[in-house]
Amino acid sequence: MRAHNFGAGPCTLPLQVLEEAQAEFTDFAGSGMSLVELSHRSAEYDAVHRRALELTRSVSRAPEDFAILFVQGGATLQFAMAPMNLLGPDERAGYVVSGSWGQAALADGAVVADAYPAWDGATDSYRRMPGAGEVTVQPGTRFLHVTSNETIGGIRMTALPDVDVPLVADMSSDYLSRPIDWDRYDLVYGGVQKNLGPAGMAVVFVRRSALDRVAPRLPKYLDYRWHAESDSLGNTPPMFPIYLMAKVLAGMEAMGGIEAVERAAEDKAALLYAAIDGSDGFYANPVDPEARSLMNVVFTLPNADLEKEFLAGAAQRHMIGLKGHRSVGGCRASLYAALPRASVEALCDYLAEFRRGH
Amino acid sequence: MRAHNFGAGPCTLPLQVLEEAQAEFTDFAGSGMSLVELSHRSAEYDAVHRRALELTRSVSRAPEDFAILFVQGGATLQFAMAPMNLLGPDERAGYVVSGSWGQAALADGAVVADAYPAWDGATDSYRRMPGAGEVTVQPGTRFLHVTSNETIGGIRMTALPDVDVPLVADMSSDYLSRPIDWDRYDLVYGGVQKNLGPAGMAVVFVRRSALDRVAPRLPKYLDYRWHAESDSLGNTPPMFPIYLMAKVLAGMEAMGGIEAVERAAEDKAALLYAAIDGSDGFYANPVDPEARSLMNVVFTLPNADLEKEFLAGAAQRHMIGLKGHRSVGGCRASLYAALPRASVEALCDYLAEFRRGH
Repeated sequence: MRAHNFGAGPCTLPLQVLEEAQAEFTDFAGSGMSLVELSHRSAEYDAVHRRALELTRSVSRAPEDFAILFVQGGATLQFAMAPMNLLGPDERAGYVVSGSWGQAALADGAVVADAYPAWDGATDSYRRMPGAGEVTVQPGTRFLHVTSNETIGGIRMTALPDVDVPLVADMSSDYLSRPIDWDRYDLVYGGVQKNLGPAGMAVVFVRRSALDRVAPRLPKYLDYRWHAESDSLGNTPPMFPIYLMAKVLAGMEAMGGIEAVERAAEDKAALLYAAIDGSDGFYANPVDPEARSLMNVVFTLPNADLEKEFLAGAAQRHMIGLKGHRSVGGCRASLYAALPRASVEALCDYLAEFRRGH
Repeated sequence: MRAHNFGAGPCTLPLQVLEEAQAEFTDFAGSGMSLVELSHRSAEYDAVHRRALELTRSVSRAPEDFAILFVQGGATLQFAMAPMNLLGPDERAGYVVSGSWGQAALADGAVVADAYPAWDGATDSYRRMPGAGEVTVQPGTRFLHVTSNETIGGIRMTALPDVDVPLVADMSSDYLSRPIDWDRYDLVYGGVQKNLGPAGMAVVFVRRSALDRVAPRLPKYLDYRWHAESDSLGNTPPMFPIYLMAKVLAGMEAMGGIEAVERAAEDKAALLYAAIDGSDGFYANPVDPEARSLMNVVFTLPNADLEKEFLAGAAQRHMIGLKGHRSVGGCRASLYAALPRASVEALCDYLAEFRRGH
């Protein structure tokens, strides 16, 4: 039977997408070849690639002045590419450090550029996002980097910092699950292996005027302009992730677009937070209610022995990926876009059942 | 029916591998999940990953003092990473420019480092590799970069340059189709989408002592040490290409290892070159016989009209990917590892049939 996959990523994908890919895996569109055997210059693949670009634009609602890039290396490579491409001489980058992903982005930013923390939530154990007026941008700052959702802390940014520089955002872990206020950003990026597809690439949205402004001399793969000018066909693209992502995005479009994805996410998260909040403290979510993630719901049980027993019982019920990150412990249920509501309902039932038994 | 796929890459994969992947695509190893939905920290995926590393080592025969890395971005990203990781201050890199891939490696090398052409085959239209004594290495050179096989010119290196610096090789287009003289190399890399798997990553072999020697300060994804220390699990790896590649490598191991792969390649190429050479000049291969590629067999017909007719007839026979690269014209048959001998036989039959008809 199909698992209830609460993993923090890679994570569940729509079963229909998987079944379609399976059916056509050895013979794509009557070509007598698998999609992964096609030339990336073939008409068959080109149609898939163009459709993926179109769907990425339509679901994201990115304006035309953003180029859309498919780049390998995940968000991790973007930690380096973002400052390498956007910063001019004597410019700096500020970082909102809201958890381990913000830390990672800053660490790589500091290797390639003049980068500094503009806010750090460490003193609050990364259980909240910065409030109004808390982010301090230094003179000469080109952009402020934010992480829209932190998978380990289980928090998300709901109010963008009130700064007067463009934002750059790592949206990996809640990508395209809520509308993006494009006016505020020069760059949005994220790995696709949470909401959008299998591991193997990042989708990057970059404002074209930001590319023309600096024009640094970079090797091809690290240069956003090279990807933009070639429509991400400058070298062989990650064809299989692009193909699967296009199917996932088509499903999002069919269900009503990004607002429908957001409503579904709110609905699933509300179910689970209600179960936690209604447990008289048996289960507890430690984060600032304003910052509760819709994607990664962290919760604790009264003690470590109960947590262990809870996880063992979950595994028997085909609920996997519920162990919290080793750095914080506890439990975590990730509710990415393709997770069926029925999986959340099953988890809520189990939460109630387990509590009754203890 | 299954196409005869003579594409220059991505290219044909073993049908058995595709069928196995198809069968288990929606439920990997009884997990109730697709391989692409598994956590990259799960026991199921970890076994796949370790097996892929082991098979890469056993098929390649890379000694233990080479680290094996799975890195996204194809060979193109390696054009930058190789000099970024290996060169110390005041060191230079020489490049054998044997065709368009050698040119591309040098172009990116020159962006990030002091890089120069140590030989350039342009005056011979890239129809041969350098002969004895032709490669000139300048003082202060850390490594000489070579391209083992040029897909566009259809040539391969059979004798390594007689220089006293370590070699760095892009082997993308004949990867693991012949034994590697490991003593000569500090670094071997290549995209996997020719002989080994689907597009989406490069396999990198790097001598560990070469990493310890320089230790440059690099952002994580661009740092070979980070990939080596994490066994390429520092961030979410390209799980699907790794999984498929492991199946392809297992097949190579089962058929007798790299020598068996080489014999099969020699056999297929010999068939096709014999058909070309025995055509009384109707078909012609323009390259130095010493440098004939076993992977990319280029050939011309008496004129462009006949080439067009030939390609149209080939398409009717489900033979695809035979058009030469736009930069050189003519025809090209790529005979990568998974191409069945029967496909080469079918092409030879068609070559004879077409010639008889004209």
